[in-house]
Amino acid sequence: MLLISERINGMFKDIREAIKKRDPQPVQERVLRQVKAGAHYLDVNTGPAVPAEEQPAVMEWLVTVVQECCDLPCCIDAPNTKSIEAGLKVHRGKAIINSTSADQHKMDELFPLAKEYGAAIIGLAMNESGVPKNASDRLALAMEVVANADIHGIDMHDLYIDPLILPVNVAQEHVVEVLETIRQVKLLADPAPHTVLGISNVSQGIQNRSLVNRTFLVMAMSAGLDAAILDVEDDALLDAAATANILLNREVYCDSYLKVFRKR
Amino acid sequence: MLLISERINGMFKDIREAIKKRDPQPVQERVLRQVKAGAHYLDVNTGPAVPAEEQPAVMEWLVTVVQECCDLPCCIDAPNTKSIEAGLKVHRGKAIINSTSADQHKMDELFPLAKEYGAAIIGLAMNESGVPKNASDRLALAMEVVANADIHGIDMHDLYIDPLILPVNVAQEHVVEVLETIRQVKLLADPAPHTVLGISNVSQGIQNRSLVNRTFLVMAMSAGLDAAILDVEDDALLDAAATANILLNREVYCDSYLKVFRKR
Repeated sequence: MLLISERINGMFKDIREAIKKRDPQPVQERVLRQVKAGAHYLDVNTGPAVPAEEQPAVMEWLVTVVQECCDLPCCIDAPNTKSIEAGLKVHRGKAIINSTSADQHKMDELFPLAKEYGAAIIGLAMNESGVPKNASDRLALAMEVVANADIHGIDMHDLYIDPLILPVNVAQEHVVEVLETIRQVKLLADPAPHTVLGISNVSQGIQNRSLVNRTFLVMAMSAGLDAAILDVEDDALLDAAATANILLNREVYCDSYLKVFRKR
Repeated sequence: MLLISERINGMFKDIREAIKKRDPQPVQERVLRQVKAGAHYLDVNTGPAVPAEEQPAVMEWLVTVVQECCDLPCCIDAPNTKSIEAGLKVHRGKAIINSTSADQHKMDELFPLAKEYGAAIIGLAMNESGVPKNASDRLALAMEVVANADIHGIDMHDLYIDPLILPVNVAQEHVVEVLETIRQVKLLADPAPHTVLGISNVSQGIQNRSLVNRTFLVMAMSAGLDAAILDVEDDALLDAAATANILLNREVYCDSYLKVFRKR
């Protein structure tokens, strides 16, 4: 289970303020907390407050600052290709591009970029028409992504399909469709692409966020989820992931399995 | 999701002592706690300390004592038919018989008893050879149970197939097989039988029991589990069940869904 920390994101106030002042310290403090908590990747996002024309330079600064203080690779998360490329240029190790949609013009830009930089890439099961309501429409878009990735010579091990989860109070009927999508994505190609989800989306704007997040994560892991963008500082969430890992027989049980999970 | 309390069982010291002294008070105190916690059924088991020849009389006493103080129906849990019948004779409402195996002589005794008393019945996916290792062997035994139930005129809504979970440290590879069994039991008949599990078995003798129990329960619910024998006094377990219920769209989301769950 690949744990991608969601926390280095201008959506959060400490990171937003640090970006504004170009102050590395609050960013690096937060990075070290993600490392300690057990993150394997750091999602890096400049956030919505940075003006579009400044975004590539800010991404370059942010990726550099993050990797100055740790050896973790980044998941370079931006809505535009220029920012993603700016991050890739300064990145050490194998990045993940977050993300391309199933729109042809996005895939035509981003798959060659992934290939050029040897990066993995997240492909969203959505297009300009929005997020599909059911599993079969999500899978049709995932198949577009898989086919286009293949045309561009992307190894399926480097492709992460994100079936996209919406908040449960907004689109309650989507959850089972997302779980079914995870199960069936594995049938789209052989070898199969990976699957990823942004876990916190499921609980946006509702009560009991941590409880809802970890319950959803366990369900998604049970359906076959390979990677998650999540709050690695949420101990209960990581304990749930560690326990799901044991129950699904992905790690051999030992009494100290909770500790072992965070060391991998 | 049918919540069957596991707690009225001579395996627990307070119930064992109460049985020994034929003292209703500790039993009834515990029963009232199960009612308050949100149980729909009470599993009633005299426990292993009662000599075989006394078991029917003790079951009769225990069921009577339990139902004197509440309106909940019981899941009458005994290894022998005489004890089950003794419980059924004094039971008010619709009982569940816990359980028949897939052995012909057990089914030939217990299905007619279920029919006579209008009780539901749990059918285990095991026989004298033990608990199968994989889903397909569990399903073959479940099919035996379904076919025999049908011959005896048992309504599928009154049949609960238990795929049987073993402790994760003993049989770690069984968990995914049990989840797959739950999914496929629904394909054995139309209408499909229900599914049930004794949740606490998964964590016998290991660390973090509550965490393992609730993680397994969420997985099993996600696979389609209809009923569970569990510790209804474990708040974290019931919160997980309530949240799974919401995510699976079995109840409409509302901010107070945790409270609503316990009132149903």
